Amino acid sequence: MKSHLDRLRALLAEISDLGRARALLAWDERTQMPRAGAESRAELVATIARVRHERLTSDEVGELLERAGEEITAFPYDSLEASLVRVTRREWEKARRVPAELRAEMTRTASIAEHAWAKAREESDFRAFLPHLERNVELRRRYAGCFEGFEGFEHPYDPLLDDFEPGMTTPEIAAILGALREGVRRLVAAVADGGIAVDDSCLYGRFPLDAQEQLARRVIAELPLERDAWRLDPTVHPFATAVSPADIRITTRFDEGYLGTLLWTVIHEAGHGIYENGMPRELWRSPLASPSSLGFHESQSRLWENWVGRSRPYLEHLLPRLRELFGEAFAAADPEALYRAANKVEPSLIRVEADPVTYNLHIALRLELELRIFDGGLELADLPEAWNALTSEYLGIDVPDDARGVLQDVHWAAGAFGYFPTYSLGNVIAGQIWDAALADLPELDDQMGRGELEPLRDWLRERLYRHGNKFMPRELVERVVGGPVDPGPYLRQLSERAHEVYGI
Amino acid sequence: MKSHLDRLRALLAEISDLGRARALLAWDERTQMPRAGAESRAELVATIARVRHERLTSDEVGELLERAGEEITAFPYDSLEASLVRVTRREWEKARRVPAELRAEMTRTASIAEHAWAKAREESDFRAFLPHLERNVELRRRYAGCFEGFEGFEHPYDPLLDDFEPGMTTPEIAAILGALREGVRRLVAAVADGGIAVDDSCLYGRFPLDAQEQLARRVIAELPLERDAWRLDPTVHPFATAVSPADIRITTRFDEGYLGTLLWTVIHEAGHGIYENGMPRELWRSPLASPSSLGFHESQSRLWENWVGRSRPYLEHLLPRLRELFGEAFAAADPEALYRAANKVEPSLIRVEADPVTYNLHIALRLELELRIFDGGLELADLPEAWNALTSEYLGIDVPDDARGVLQDVHWAAGAFGYFPTYSLGNVIAGQIWDAALADLPELDDQMGRGELEPLRDWLRERLYRHGNKFMPRELVERVVGGPVDPGPYLRQLSERAHEVYGI
Repeated sequence: MKSHLDRLRALLAEISDLGRARALLAWDERTQMPRAGAESRAELVATIARVRHERLTSDEVGELLERAGEEITAFPYDSLEASLVRVTRREWEKARRVPAELRAEMTRTASIAEHAWAKAREESDFRAFLPHLERNVELRRRYAGCFEGFEGFEHPYDPLLDDFEPGMTTPEIAAILGALREGVRRLVAAVADGGIAVDDSCLYGRFPLDAQEQLARRVIAELPLERDAWRLDPTVHPFATAVSPADIRITTRFDEGYLGTLLWTVIHEAGHGIYENGMPRELWRSPLASPSSLGFHESQSRLWENWVGRSRPYLEHLLPRLRELFGEAFAAADPEALYRAANKVEPSLIRVEADPVTYNLHIALRLELELRIFDGGLELADLPEAWNALTSEYLGIDVPDDARGVLQDVHWAAGAFGYFPTYSLGNVIAGQIWDAALADLPELDDQMGRGELEPLRDWLRERLYRHGNKFMPRELVERVVGGPVDPGPYLRQLSERAHEVYGI
Repeated sequence: MKSHLDRLRALLAEISDLGRARALLAWDERTQMPRAGAESRAELVATIARVRHERLTSDEVGELLERAGEEITAFPYDSLEASLVRVTRREWEKARRVPAELRAEMTRTASIAEHAWAKAREESDFRAFLPHLERNVELRRRYAGCFEGFEGFEHPYDPLLDDFEPGMTTPEIAAILGALREGVRRLVAAVADGGIAVDDSCLYGRFPLDAQEQLARRVIAELPLERDAWRLDPTVHPFATAVSPADIRITTRFDEGYLGTLLWTVIHEAGHGIYENGMPRELWRSPLASPSSLGFHESQSRLWENWVGRSRPYLEHLLPRLRELFGEAFAAADPEALYRAANKVEPSLIRVEADPVTYNLHIALRLELELRIFDGGLELADLPEAWNALTSEYLGIDVPDDARGVLQDVHWAAGAFGYFPTYSLGNVIAGQIWDAALADLPELDDQMGRGELEPLRDWLRERLYRHGNKFMPRELVERVVGGPVDPGPYLRQLSERAHEVYGI
């Protein structure tokens, strides 16, 4: 006879499959779907989400959790069995709070809003997008309202943040990212005041799209992703998704006039893929076969993009490949010039085009606005004005139109509030992990210079990836780096790099 | 308060969505998925199929069918409401017979068998495929065994056939396709004996793949499919699928040395798409928003491929486009030569490469073998021998190896027994529909010559597509052509074309 734990695992495997199917639907919608399919797709996604939610929130899962919990009292805290019950119970308790219809409506509304956003952005027409945004925010407020009295939730923004960063509270994220923001603002001011000029012209020019695609495929093939376990497609807003740990969908966009877009987007998204690809086999088809949080997920995309992909040794390794594919554009550039170009710091308008340093200021302004929307009484109609004021304050730039301002990101169209801060949190965690990796891998620089990235991947698998989603981010950061989340190492590393590049 | 019919419709919409999600998963698996994703994908597909099946076979649907049936006694037979209840009831009664686990196992086994088949075909190794085939057949026998006493099922092959051609019995299909087989064998013999030589060399040469892809996109864009409602991808075994009636996925394969593969594959698969794309809006997200049967589905792919795509006027319209894309290859060809090349009749080894006439003999041999497997005691180990003997008898060809013999098709690997006969049935029905179209559209030839295909599409929408899946094929053929399925018109049309091309 099957144990309750076995029955629970079978049910959770189905729920996992439904989640993976939904991931495929989302990937397809953004990379493959004929335009006329949009309307039906919204219904389809809503149905899969609803069916998954119904199963997850069923009385049956609740009862199996109860019984399985009794079966596994002797299992250690970090065992697959104990973790499965613990993690699922928290998800079940959260999911039980949300009526299936509300969740379906959020999904359906967001899907329609995304298409409206794409059109509104094209026409820089915030008014056309506003009703969709209002609907999204209203639904998220109702969503947050479902969690009254939930353990650890105090601030109205907590339930939104928790979906992406479980256990992180609003005061905590505000403190961590506040310290980061101030440190970054000081650094950016120092660069502007006293930094020597950085010439990044080698990254600008005419880079034929087919050569860029070749570069992308070559770069990914040389990253430590398993063979035949990934694909690459163009899209508007790049992302990576795992239809399974062995089926990684990387997307990118191409800019014919600037090679940096493609290059670091591809490494970034592949970094997400390397984490998903590293989920240990015994966790597959369970809720544990995924990164612990978006902050951790971003820590890996950013670690691979910025700590590896913008490092001097990796770029030294890459330069001959750039010369081979793009000829004269890189004939004159030496590794040092490429390294400096890759690490130029300059405030700019568009988050996804920002350099890795000022990127954090884009996040700071979004977090600030999300807090004002959900707890500060900011009217959505006034959002463009507030956006523009903060852009001026943090980045020193005037926003010329809403397409390049408040309409630039898909997240709010997709209903994802509480998501943005995880990008910067990822930087912070990556900085802590990098210090730990350097301590354990004294040859790391040399290895990166030879394009040997497996040792780093293997270290990350052993230290981080193998845990999957067993632990809350708070526990995991403690296990991986031996302390709490701390922006110190990242700010120190930024300063060190600014010293190398800008002489400050 | 919602009526039972409304609640039934909402449930059926979800079931429809799950079916569409499964279609997308299958399309993705065959066109996009990284190879390493295969194993997880089998589980994923099985889960979606199982969830759909559980919902369809639920007591709730049964009860709603009962209650909704009482609400709609006053609705006419062909109303959406009456048809929905009638068609769903039959599907529910069939589905209730099949345990969810058996269905999931069929899906999972078939998914694994497909990958094994692809490898076995590469290595022409029937023995390696045999255990997968045995498992598939065993599972289909168990499946057929679920239908003991089901109304209209007498022959052990009936339940398999019924999944693709509802209501068609084994004696009926054997009689129709038997008459077709004998008529085609006579015609092929007459062509071989007394036909003048047909030169199809203009279709052979070097056709660059990018120009072929351009041709494919241009041909599809000029067919009467709605704009932005389709896409085209390469695959091994071409198919078309509808993720929604406005999201048609056409697939094709390319042969650099023979243009016919691409050209008529694309028109064939687009023909399936034109039918799906013609489903009237009020049927979407219901079980009625699909063709009535595979025979009817094939009647449309074949009508567009062979009656339109190989007609003299259409090819006359196409020739300048071929000259533009392929230059000298078609410089010398006149429309008459192209027409003759397109209609060459010559027995060959591979079904999917066969001309439209001898194609029916490939089907005849597969039907014969399926009947022997499920009712004649044929051992699967002896299948290659039986295959080779029938190929020799019907087509006069020796099979050199299993890759080009019994392993050539994916169907049995996918567990699809009862599917093959619908291809020829499609020819038969298309012949009857074409006679009716010609009677109503006296300008049809001129329109095809100008590439104006909307009038034919509109006629088909009005006569056939608008019914969706409201009627059993038997009823539908009566409505569309005013009589039962009859191979007469198709055999007459084949003779007429052979007369034009071969002078017999």
